[in-house]
Amino acid sequence: MDLKKIAEILKCDFGGENFEITKMNTLRDATKSEISFVANSKYVKDIQSSNAGVIIVDKSTKEFVPECCVALVVESPYWAMATLSKYFAPSIEDNTLPAPMIGEGSTISPKAEIANGAVVGKNCTIMAHVYIGANSQIGDNTVIYPSVAVYRDCKIGSNCIIHANSTIGSDGFGFATNKLGEHRKIYQNGNVVVEDDVEIGSSTAIDRAVFGTTLIKRGVRIDNLVQVGHNCVVGEYSVLVAQSGIAGSTTLGRNIVLGGQSAIAGHLSIAPFTTMAARSGVTKSINESGLTFAGFPLMEHRLWLKLQGKIARLIKQ
Amino acid sequence: MDLKKIAEILKCDFGGENFEITKMNTLRDATKSEISFVANSKYVKDIQSSNAGVIIVDKSTKEFVPECCVALVVESPYWAMATLSKYFAPSIEDNTLPAPMIGEGSTISPKAEIANGAVVGKNCTIMAHVYIGANSQIGDNTVIYPSVAVYRDCKIGSNCIIHANSTIGSDGFGFATNKLGEHRKIYQNGNVVVEDDVEIGSSTAIDRAVFGTTLIKRGVRIDNLVQVGHNCVVGEYSVLVAQSGIAGSTTLGRNIVLGGQSAIAGHLSIAPFTTMAARSGVTKSINESGLTFAGFPLMEHRLWLKLQGKIARLIKQ
Amino acid sequence: MDLKKIAEILKCDFGGENFEITKMNTLRDATKSEISFVANSKYVKDIQSSNAGVIIVDKSTKEFVPECCVALVVESPYWAMATLSKYFAPSIEDNTLPAPMIGEGSTISPKAEIANGAVVGKNCTIMAHVYIGANSQIGDNTVIYPSVAVYRDCKIGSNCIIHANSTIGSDGFGFATNKLGEHRKIYQNGNVVVEDDVEIGSSTAIDRAVFGTTLIKRGVRIDNLVQVGHNCVVGEYSVLVAQSGIAGSTTLGRNIVLGGQSAIAGHLSIAPFTTMAARSGVTKSINESGLTFAGFPLMEHRLWLKLQGKIARLIKQ
Repeated sequence: MDLKKIAEILKCDFGGENFEITKMNTLRDATKSEISFVANSKYVKDIQSSNAGVIIVDKSTKEFVPECCVALVVESPYWAMATLSKYFAPSIEDNTLPAPMIGEGSTISPKAEIANGAVVGKNCTIMAHVYIGANSQIGDNTVIYPSVAVYRDCKIGSNCIIHANSTIGSDGFGFATNKLGEHRKIYQNGNVVVEDDVEIGSSTAIDRAVFGTTLIKRGVRIDNLVQVGHNCVVGEYSVLVAQSGIAGSTTLGRNIVLGGQSAIAGHLSIAPFTTMAARSGVTKSINESGLTFAGFPLMEHRLWLKLQGKIARLIKQ
Repeated sequence: MDLKKIAEILKCDFGGENFEITKMNTLRDATKSEISFVANSKYVKDIQSSNAGVIIVDKSTKEFVPECCVALVVESPYWAMATLSKYFAPSIEDNTLPAPMIGEGSTISPKAEIANGAVVGKNCTIMAHVYIGANSQIGDNTVIYPSVAVYRDCKIGSNCIIHANSTIGSDGFGFATNKLGEHRKIYQNGNVVVEDDVEIGSSTAIDRAVFGTTLIKRGVRIDNLVQVGHNCVVGEYSVLVAQSGIAGSTTLGRNIVLGGQSAIAGHLSIAPFTTMAARSGVTKSINESGLTFAGFPLMEHRLWLKLQGKIARLIKQ
Repeated sequence: MDLKKIAEILKCDFGGENFEITKMNTLRDATKSEISFVANSKYVKDIQSSNAGVIIVDKSTKEFVPECCVALVVESPYWAMATLSKYFAPSIEDNTLPAPMIGEGSTISPKAEIANGAVVGKNCTIMAHVYIGANSQIGDNTVIYPSVAVYRDCKIGSNCIIHANSTIGSDGFGFATNKLGEHRKIYQNGNVVVEDDVEIGSSTAIDRAVFGTTLIKRGVRIDNLVQVGHNCVVGEYSVLVAQSGIAGSTTLGRNIVLGGQSAIAGHLSIAPFTTMAARSGVTKSINESGLTFAGFPLMEHRLWLKLQGKIARLIKQ
């Protein structure tokens, strides 16, 4: 879509040179042909180092945009970004894409649906009622159980197992809200990448990124009914036990253990080899590796045990 | 079914005039041709204002039933209601219903199943392995991702998005239990109505009402793995974050936010613009609008923060 | 597979008489033609009473294995067991099995998939997009809603209802971890048995046993989004409310109530007629019947109420 059209959609003034915009992206990752936005004053500092060709800003932020970059001024950059995201969303399916390619030795149930543009590797088992979306890729020797949905543009590695009724690549929970309390969807135009040797349980949900990738690294073990929010990174060999959840944009190091029903808030970073006991609730980043935590609010497990002793005494008083 | 037959099923005395009973309903909503019940002494006061043609009661409650209304006396009205509910349950599918009607511009996967009597509006996308039950209605421009099940008699509005593997209209969790501890299913003969502009995540469950409607109002945003119990009302623009749950018959005002893994007990009412932090556990109604709560038991968020400070000091002591 | 081949796979010395090994099993249940293992010193005491034909042990445990039983010595018996489990896993589907048998009066959607070797009883309703795996058995009068997956070798009783998008028999969450933090899958070669008169909600996950059976007894009621781990036993007429979870190898007596979002840790035993309030977290076995508990850590409900009073006073101080 060209810049002039974008300015029209957002109803903002634009008199400069028109050019083609290929994508929406974060300030950090956007290139010259891409458009980004600043919706929060804490990101103003990132404008200078951004390579974005266009940045959507509000009036007060305009002055920080360098000359080499087009500033589109709107009342609410976040709402504008939501508005615009719809125009950059690819169609859910696309029949002009080539027929799906299936590797040698793979068994595809006639009751599975493999969309055009998808590629399935060798010796895979794709069972009944599975959906593999447009341009998705499945590696070799991977087993996908019934009623799994892999949305478009996602990648599943080799030697993976995905159990029934799980969803890979559904939209992240993103929307802008106006002063009237109404919401507008932020189309999630990123994807999910699941590396090799990953096993995912049943009825688990892994959301696609708003931009970029939600990444499940090699060797991860995910149990049933787990939620992984958009733009998370789950480090190698991490273990997410049943009914645990991770909000958006959180990064886990390798060999993290999340106990059953535990949860991690968004935009955090968890050091490698951290263990969270069942029901832990994590609201701050963990910088030191190898510790064990429990409770909500979170504390070191030994402190949590001590607290339980104190509470037991409190009851007796 | 006629009243004589009902009396036979419930094995209770009946010598009055026979007439046709069309439906089971609550005391409040039942009409002259409908049957209701009193299973709990706190509803005795509602008998006088009920228009029900027949009320199932126990011996001690019979005297409160006015002359214009037939009283069927049983040992356990709740068990009797469960017994009877089966007879009022419509068949799951019905091939005598007309073939489904699909609006102009809609794309229906040949691998989806649209039951007889269903109506899909214009420009919808119904993907592979979706199930749309008998007499269900889908509005215009709505996208339903793979393996979503919409049970019979439910309505989904226009401009909605429902992500993969979610279930709309499964039976509410209702049963009667006798003195031996055995359960008898209460057939859930109501439905679910999802209004316009609603987005629902993956692997979310919204149960149909026992009588009447479970209602998701305009503009609501529901994340993945969320539970909405039977007969709930979720107010306009409310936001239910991943893994949160609402037990049956709870009413949420508009623009409620339920944080991740939070929960609300049944039969409560939550004032508009209430925010529940992640992991909140709500066991009482909230009458004042616009407040923020946290914790379980629930308290105002500022008190919860104060409590955490006290607990931190308790640990250090 | 013969013992010589097993010794080769595990790269351990074996010079004895070769014989056929039919199965992997626990020390307690293994027979003369079966192989077991000791991965934890607390099970050393069970070696003497085991009838296993072969036991995988480490060097230090070898001396406890009686002469009548073959000891295969490896560095890590748990890792060896994981390695070996793959060889004992049956194929997911098997086209040499007889065509599925469907009882009189049953309605099977043409969009359901019933694998070879499966048997469906009389008067069942198997809806669109359901998957019934190899050698699975469904009793009479059972209703299975859309997109339910029943994995191979599982049994569902008569008069059961399973709601949409639930999974019966997915693999339990089992794996061995080596010193590098890498995981190896333990193939789950047991099954799930659901007895008669059970109702299971939508998007619920019941994992198959690693060996033996995950058992849901007669009359149980399971709500939506519930997790039941491998090798659990859920007693007659128990009630598992939405979003509750049970970790592996826990046994519930009859008429247990698990409130919403409550959880029970693994390898516990819960006495009959125990009630857990919503959000309870159970980490120890309950031996006395008929009590009501709450909180995490768990305490009797009356103590929990007392604690909440103390906490309320703590905030005011």
